[in-house]
Amino acid sequence: MLALYHAEPAANSLKVLIALHEKGLAFESRYVDLHKFEQHEPWFVKINPDGQVPVLDHDGALIVQTTVINEYLEDVFPDQNPLRPADPVKRAHTRVWNKFCDEHVMNHVSMHGWHRMVSIIARSVESDEFEQLMSRIPLKEQREKWRTARSGFAQDQLDEATRKIEVACNRVEAALADGPWLIGDFYSLADINFFSYCGIAVGRMFPEMVTAQSHPRLTDWVERMRARPGVAMALAGPDHTDPKLRTFTGEAR
Amino acid sequence: MLALYHAEPAANSLKVLIALHEKGLAFESRYVDLHKFEQHEPWFVKINPDGQVPVLDHDGALIVQTTVINEYLEDVFPDQNPLRPADPVKRAHTRVWNKFCDEHVMNHVSMHGWHRMVSIIARSVESDEFEQLMSRIPLKEQREKWRTARSGFAQDQLDEATRKIEVACNRVEAALADGPWLIGDFYSLADINFFSYCGIAVGRMFPEMVTAQSHPRLTDWVERMRARPGVAMALAGPDHTDPKLRTFTGEAR
Repeated sequence: MLALYHAEPAANSLKVLIALHEKGLAFESRYVDLHKFEQHEPWFVKINPDGQVPVLDHDGALIVQTTVINEYLEDVFPDQNPLRPADPVKRAHTRVWNKFCDEHVMNHVSMHGWHRMVSIIARSVESDEFEQLMSRIPLKEQREKWRTARSGFAQDQLDEATRKIEVACNRVEAALADGPWLIGDFYSLADINFFSYCGIAVGRMFPEMVTAQSHPRLTDWVERMRARPGVAMALAGPDHTDPKLRTFTGEAR
Repeated sequence: MLALYHAEPAANSLKVLIALHEKGLAFESRYVDLHKFEQHEPWFVKINPDGQVPVLDHDGALIVQTTVINEYLEDVFPDQNPLRPADPVKRAHTRVWNKFCDEHVMNHVSMHGWHRMVSIIARSVESDEFEQLMSRIPLKEQREKWRTARSGFAQDQLDEATRKIEVACNRVEAALADGPWLIGDFYSLADINFFSYCGIAVGRMFPEMVTAQSHPRLTDWVERMRARPGVAMALAGPDHTDPKLRTFTGEAR
């Protein structure tokens, strides 16, 4: 049996939810409420010592890291709507895109997401309670990110992240000239990866950076991604985010 | 036919050289002289637009990124001394280690390597020539790294990198309790990855951090890695590094 510990259909959780729905795999949804910091509670840290979602439970085997989970699904269910090309060269290209998304896109979009949304959560907590919450976070880097979300990210870091997001969007725009997908004809984990981290967020976060004029192929690709039944099913999953946190285009308030 | 564009048997080049030798694959060695900045010359940038080694050429298909190259070799030659476990769960664990090495080890060891060695190259070049060399480097991040190598890395950044290297070594020491290898019984790409980025360098760079007393399993594992014929063959490859640059334990001079 497959079960997925996940949060809202965005970023890391979305990336695995899309793969599961695209492959048509039945799974049990185990919602972890990040607004209540459930990912740092002892019961969850037993499941993932890093205190992070999503985690796949396959008959008791626990798999972490979104790119690893999605490759695992391909290894175990290779014939069920494959999302990894059979040709080894194209498979390598898919993995180069995955590395690019994981190492050069995710963190930069994440910083803006934290700046605009998570900072509101971080500031809404009283100091005593905040320190108590911090003491439960396993990863030092994650504790530092929460502290920075509370105190505010530096403008030069936000600007550099914005620049790198634009570089990434330009690279995708160029690659889609050989489309319709990132690996040519083959709809793959690379599309799911970029869409989950950046494709879905960039238009809302930076409406002037990516437009139908500046990035016609990318904006068309985002629409084609959204129109896929598997993607639509993943995006339609439960979303408990406080509407006040939906300040994609604005500053933290 | 397989050919590998590579530099000295260290770090990124070593990682692919070990995989090729361990699998017993015949390949043509195409040495790229980093001391002469050949990786930024137009002929090489045609092969890899990022201007980085190693690159695998398989019958004309060019594969980049060390972890991707090593997975590619498993995809194409799965039965030749497999370095990736057949069991999907163990395969996922191998990939989690690969991500850890690529994202949380490599950069930190690399910073100390650049601080101690590449900075000597960067400072040995006259200003005019240095600017000319910089203008040929495709990646902005790489240009910044060269400039920092010339001006000097900040001590707090070096200290943070040292801390993260120690965290990584402690994690490997703990994992080897279920050894003899990182994925238990199976010698895998994870061992090759950590050895190439950190295992071989840490004892020379930080002789007091990793000792037979503090990390008995890790130091034993390094010796067992070195004793493997494939690893020994990779390490015995040509090394054109100026002996003056071998200041692993010292400061840049």
